[in-house]
Amino acid sequence: LKKYVIIVAGGTGKRMGTETPKQFLCLNSIPVLMHTINVFYLFDNMINIVLVLPKEHINEWSELCKQYSFNINHIVTKGGEARFHSVKNGLSQIKETNCLIAVHDGVRPLVAAEVIKRSFDCAEEKGAAVPSVTINDSLRILTEKYSRTIDRSSVRAIQTPQCFRADILKRAYEQEYEDFFTDDATVIENIGGKIYLVEGNRENIKITTSLDMQIAEALMRSKA
Amino acid sequence: LKKYVIIVAGGTGKRMGTETPKQFLCLNSIPVLMHTINVFYLFDNMINIVLVLPKEHINEWSELCKQYSFNINHIVTKGGEARFHSVKNGLSQIKETNCLIAVHDGVRPLVAAEVIKRSFDCAEEKGAAVPSVTINDSLRILTEKYSRTIDRSSVRAIQTPQCFRADILKRAYEQEYEDFFTDDATVIENIGGKIYLVEGNRENIKITTSLDMQIAEALMRSKA
Repeated sequence: LKKYVIIVAGGTGKRMGTETPKQFLCLNSIPVLMHTINVFYLFDNMINIVLVLPKEHINEWSELCKQYSFNINHIVTKGGEARFHSVKNGLSQIKETNCLIAVHDGVRPLVAAEVIKRSFDCAEEKGAAVPSVTINDSLRILTEKYSRTIDRSSVRAIQTPQCFRADILKRAYEQEYEDFFTDDATVIENIGGKIYLVEGNRENIKITTSLDMQIAEALMRSKA
Repeated sequence: LKKYVIIVAGGTGKRMGTETPKQFLCLNSIPVLMHTINVFYLFDNMINIVLVLPKEHINEWSELCKQYSFNINHIVTKGGEARFHSVKNGLSQIKETNCLIAVHDGVRPLVAAEVIKRSFDCAEEKGAAVPSVTINDSLRILTEKYSRTIDRSSVRAIQTPQCFRADILKRAYEQEYEDFFTDDATVIENIGGKIYLVEGNRENIKITTSLDMQIAEALMRSKA
């Protein structure tokens, strides 16, 4: 099946204490978002890439592409209010229904190619697959006054790319927005879809703070 | 109240793919465990430090202390089969009962002094306090065939130092060992104790893999 990836880069970098949105910051001298697009292109140079950016950052992005001579082909579309609306805008760029669609966070440049493959393969077979990793720390749930333990062995931290058969994903995104839609899996699940987990890679962190940028730099170095 | 910290450094480094146990590996040119001890000493130079090491590493540690001219005063005692037994051995070195005891992972050298303070302060008031941080990724629970979402806003990742009033901790460690005792909080909770959460620091990672060593190096650099 033909493959698409919607790369969601909606954040405006408020948490970073910097004017530049985090996906435009440089990691090893190229912007985070170019790393992310590169990984998908290297995974499959026939993949169709849809990039969702806040309206006000689209010009800056095309300037960056010129500046860095970045020439991997991709469609750019504008983001919406929440992640849900951004993904929905991205989906509207994909007319096919018999294909596979990955949704990936723009600020996860360290996803491994084998994780992308695993997610697509499982989605082709089962409809909906998301990468996940085990959690090293003990976990507790807050209760009204104190806290109680939960068994971490059955809990997984969820990453992206979250991969789906296009018909399933499109149907899910026809519903009304809900506040608890934190990722695509929750959107699918809300219309009764089943989410299958595949193994992610630990390096695949979501860069949301300057501390994360420093960790990502260390991880990039150790990969090289 | 007088303060003690039991630093548990029981692991033998099997997961690191190296002969040297991870707590003896160098970070910024001194062993991880010396960083860890330093943080507690800098927090309060009157604190009583009990270090629990596997029997077979005690000689190596005293060699390292000579080599690095490490002269922060501490008692060394030998570890047991599981973390539970190691902590219990550490506790047997503390005769007082009207004091505060922290239990800390030797491989968490990046704990912030204010987190140590917060844990001790809360333990003095409430009896049992552990540091925790929110989780950035979405979380799912494994079910028999697929998975379901859980609300991450009520879940916390647990760190150390876990701090307790000595009488409570000693009583808890008189019970029989259970497999689900992954930290001191679970031991306390099993005899009906309440665990209070205080804010941890994100840098306070547990170094268990070589990837973690690289992340820790990056975090040390950014702190300097």
